[in-house]
Amino acid sequence: MNSEEFREFGKAAIDFIADYVDNIRERPVLPSVEPGYLASLVPGEMPEEGEDWRHIMRDMNTVIMPGITHWQSPQFNAYFPTGSSYPSIVGDMLSGAFGLIGFSWLSSPACTELEVLVMNWLGKALGLPEEFLNCSPGPGGGIIQSTASEATLVSILVAKRKMINHWQSKNPSLTENDIRNKLVAYTSDQSNSSVEKSAIIGDVPVRQLRSDDNGVLRGDALLTAVKEDLAKGLIPCCLIATLGTTGTCAFDNLEELGPICQEYNIWLHVDAAYAGSALLLPEYAHLKRGLEYVDSFDFNTHKWLLVNFDCSAMWVKDANHLMNAFFIDRVYLKHTDAPMNTQSPDYMRCQPCKTLLNL
Amino acid sequence: MNSEEFREFGKAAIDFIADYVDNIRERPVLPSVEPGYLASLVPGEMPEEGEDWRHIMRDMNTVIMPGITHWQSPQFNAYFPTGSSYPSIVGDMLSGAFGLIGFSWLSSPACTELEVLVMNWLGKALGLPEEFLNCSPGPGGGIIQSTASEATLVSILVAKRKMINHWQSKNPSLTENDIRNKLVAYTSDQSNSSVEKSAIIGDVPVRQLRSDDNGVLRGDALLTAVKEDLAKGLIPCCLIATLGTTGTCAFDNLEELGPICQEYNIWLHVDAAYAGSALLLPEYAHLKRGLEYVDSFDFNTHKWLLVNFDCSAMWVKDANHLMNAFFIDRVYLKHTDAPMNTQSPDYMRCQPCKTLLNL
Repeated sequence: MNSEEFREFGKAAIDFIADYVDNIRERPVLPSVEPGYLASLVPGEMPEEGEDWRHIMRDMNTVIMPGITHWQSPQFNAYFPTGSSYPSIVGDMLSGAFGLIGFSWLSSPACTELEVLVMNWLGKALGLPEEFLNCSPGPGGGIIQSTASEATLVSILVAKRKMINHWQSKNPSLTENDIRNKLVAYTSDQSNSSVEKSAIIGDVPVRQLRSDDNGVLRGDALLTAVKEDLAKGLIPCCLIATLGTTGTCAFDNLEELGPICQEYNIWLHVDAAYAGSALLLPEYAHLKRGLEYVDSFDFNTHKWLLVNFDCSAMWVKDANHLMNAFFIDRVYLKHTDAPMNTQSPDYMRCQPCKTLLNL
Repeated sequence: MNSEEFREFGKAAIDFIADYVDNIRERPVLPSVEPGYLASLVPGEMPEEGEDWRHIMRDMNTVIMPGITHWQSPQFNAYFPTGSSYPSIVGDMLSGAFGLIGFSWLSSPACTELEVLVMNWLGKALGLPEEFLNCSPGPGGGIIQSTASEATLVSILVAKRKMINHWQSKNPSLTENDIRNKLVAYTSDQSNSSVEKSAIIGDVPVRQLRSDDNGVLRGDALLTAVKEDLAKGLIPCCLIATLGTTGTCAFDNLEELGPICQEYNIWLHVDAAYAGSALLLPEYAHLKRGLEYVDSFDFNTHKWLLVNFDCSAMWVKDANHLMNAFFIDRVYLKHTDAPMNTQSPDYMRCQPCKTLLNL
């Protein structure tokens, strides 16, 4: 496709999108197709020749649209909200055109530095404790992940590595397996399924602690579990607390949980996947109580902030733990122009463009 | 932003992109900015009011563009190719407008079924063994992952779970830790850094076996390592072979490695991240030798197939192993309309739109 065709195709797609959003209210949210509907509508083999874009756009209406569940409809009340907005779509277009991978500063200075600055903006706007911000002194900072699930996995892995290092430095005769086999993580029985899945992937058993009658994880439940596990010779490693549970939007009590985590050296991660956006509002400032105890915090801008999937904002108080946990040395990952520092870090992933446009 | 503004903004962005690509050859590939250049060019706080899109587009030229490394330039010869193309950009736009998460059939029938069909197209075009295809009888099938790194991680986790189940069924008195502590994975000393990182995340030690003088992993190196490890009481678990190494595009010898993996019940994953696209060409059919032994295969359409990041195509011979390894049960992940089957599976991830448009 040459650039003249793209100008036509792209502009037709812009109109298609604007028409879709303008009229989405009139569509039934759920499609009426049966499983397997698509097979008879598309060829069984990949076409040998490219098709004219006008045919593709026609197929969008006749082949694809009948099988779409309209997540952006105001009548869509299933699952969870997934963000989409006009500025975010344009951000994706521009990002797609540059087609760059910002895994190090040099591989895209703009991408890396924009991520740092936008994460500072967002962190300040949320009112996160200063230590989380890249623009404050110290080793804290923000990084964009794909999803809150990914952020949970990252915190479990970081907590695990930190705990293995901690115990090996105390007792060098312990092997990694000796320590790993004793690790245990905690979350509430109301936490998202992604916590359980992250624990499977990260291979740390997670105990789902009983929440109170309001679905809130309280300090006493954690303390009891920690003491039980210590008595069994296990090593409490991390707690995944939720601000805004999937079922009832309950907020775990960080003011009770935080001091226990500090006392027992437990990594405290907060999964605020969808409700985290509420912290932007002054009238919800009380929901931030206890955030000063937290080691890592994550929420999805691709929910209430209307950024297109995927863009999950994660902050950590001490980014060194992340680098220790995932450090790999290869010649093609190095560069000499910019030493690793908090103002121009080497991210392995970066997609700030659409977030910027949405703010 | 209302739809009228979006029509203007979006079309201006289309022209911006076409102009960028038309003139990319004239830009120096590497930007000349110094680390930290961006901080003085953008405000320290998030703007309280949205800006006019014309200002944003002006900033794209004056603030962002000076810090872009032009990965799409024909003079860019660093790292690896990253795909971008006009049809793929439009695919992303449409996908962004629908803003749907296709984690189950019901959450988006079109998305799920298109992924199945496009993966069949692609698998047939590559000439993969039939068992990998969803359209053949049996439990094989394709799924889109974000990256080849993710596919490697998935195979390590699946191999680990399969091996733990296998040994526990043979000897129910063994604990998961008993087995896990003995697992060992293999790859060549030429494999991508992502293999090492996946092994860290999946917590299975990986041995980097010596490749031959052409950078090829051969059967004798694997067999020696397997025998050594068995003699130590370890459990060989998986091999990550590479078709197209990062350094020299060497192809590991699957015809030698495959039978050894079969004999010792070792999961054989092929990372064909960038060179896999070459299998589309009849003149490279010989590179497919030994693929019949493979358990899982992955390559990135976001490299030579010009699909925008991210879209990595993975096939497995037996998808049941994936489901066993990652199964989580939650009320909001269930639906009754479509039973789980190979024609309309419940994917947890799906982004076929841009791949379709690019083919």
